[in-house]
Amino acid sequence: MVSLGPGFPEYVIPRAKAALDAAQVVAGYRTYLDLIKPFLTHQEILSSGMKAEVKRCQAAIDRARAGQWVALVSSGDAGIYGMAGLVLEICAARGLKVGPPEDNGEVDFHLEMVPGVPALGAAAALLGAPLMHDFAVISLSDLLTPWEMIQKRVELAAAGDLVIVLYNPKSKKRDWQLGAVREILLKVKDPATPVGIVVKARREGQEVTVTTLAEMLMHQVDMQTIVIVGNSQTFTYGPYMITPRGYLSKYQVGEDSSQ
Amino acid sequence: MVSLGPGFPEYVIPRAKAALDAAQVVAGYRTYLDLIKPFLTHQEILSSGMKAEVKRCQAAIDRARAGQWVALVSSGDAGIYGMAGLVLEICAARGLKVGPPEDNGEVDFHLEMVPGVPALGAAAALLGAPLMHDFAVISLSDLLTPWEMIQKRVELAAAGDLVIVLYNPKSKKRDWQLGAVREILLKVKDPATPVGIVVKARREGQEVTVTTLAEMLMHQVDMQTIVIVGNSQTFTYGPYMITPRGYLSKYQVGEDSSQ
Repeated sequence: MVSLGPGFPEYVIPRAKAALDAAQVVAGYRTYLDLIKPFLTHQEILSSGMKAEVKRCQAAIDRARAGQWVALVSSGDAGIYGMAGLVLEICAARGLKVGPPEDNGEVDFHLEMVPGVPALGAAAALLGAPLMHDFAVISLSDLLTPWEMIQKRVELAAAGDLVIVLYNPKSKKRDWQLGAVREILLKVKDPATPVGIVVKARREGQEVTVTTLAEMLMHQVDMQTIVIVGNSQTFTYGPYMITPRGYLSKYQVGEDSSQ
Repeated sequence: MVSLGPGFPEYVIPRAKAALDAAQVVAGYRTYLDLIKPFLTHQEILSSGMKAEVKRCQAAIDRARAGQWVALVSSGDAGIYGMAGLVLEICAARGLKVGPPEDNGEVDFHLEMVPGVPALGAAAALLGAPLMHDFAVISLSDLLTPWEMIQKRVELAAAGDLVIVLYNPKSKKRDWQLGAVREILLKVKDPATPVGIVVKARREGQEVTVTTLAEMLMHQVDMQTIVIVGNSQTFTYGPYMITPRGYLSKYQVGEDSSQ
């Protein structure tokens, strides 16, 4: 299970690159495979469309059971809203025994989860430092989660003054959720709260915007967008949004060390 | 601002390695600098102890203002409870103008935030797939945050059935917080809820444990430990903990694609 991070090859860890190089088969979502194709040489490629996630994982598992070295790739971090869970769920449902490479017991195949730079981290780095304090990560996709649950989580995160990271803010079929979240947040948060919007981090078409809760809907948002809403302490500074490390002023940042 | 990820060199993105190679000065916490020292050649090294964070950032900023290429390193992702915010806070307090490398305007110096694999991602990968659904990330350090705030956030995260990632669960001086959090969680969560504990992910001394909320205090925990508490759907499977992708059963994982 190989995480590709936000962009290839500069943002992919050597461990992931080595797994791709060693693989006989590389399986993944077509769009992401296209990004790494220039770096694939001998590998057989199993690509599939966006809705074919379960089949893709099943095919990868079948190949691994047959003794092949398989790299199933996932954008960002496969362990954060990625394919890692689905692979394990399918193995569990099939009663397979899998374990990490260092497992010396009898297994149907070895499975290594190679982490990567997650979309939330790539976005945060482009925005400055919004994640210096506690945060909640919430997906606005209501495909597998009831909307009431998503709404409740946004309310609770706001009540706890957590920085809020929103995944999947919008898709072609889901266009009202981000507006609904903004309404919920405006009930308890200052309209001037900084909001960062990062479209396609470290990919072609990247756009980075620091705006406010009041004006956040005036900017382009899509499936590959991360939205980060600040906490009560978050402030802007030049092109950046910054969440301080704490709520107490135990440290002095103003003094000049050269004095 | 260079993120070192969980382990060097296999878990560090090429972009970070390139920044280190290009640097004239590398500044950081002594323990982390020791890990990367074998890979440093020509760079001047500014190392300092754990409590000297502000001074370290100030020294790095002074060097950058003097025109030197400086890599300020941070373990994991510098943008998640790391040094990225402190650097920007100090720049803001001093009235400096900084901007990303692609900024063509007049700045005191250019600043690039290089993301990395965060501790939470490294831990999640070792535990299986605990972060497939919404989660809260909460630090138990009450050095800069009132304990009442931390406690409230844990309560709200539990009320929202978020997976909970705990940073800084324990230090030499703070030894009761994790137990207090467990008590809060036991009020609303099943004692059998899976809990993952990862000590020193991808470093010497790594330990990975999947246990339960009831028994979580029976395992070693330190400053470099990440604790992940599952949501109501999280289950264990062999050595792994898995949080399903949703609350609805819209997808079938049991069928065998080879049939």
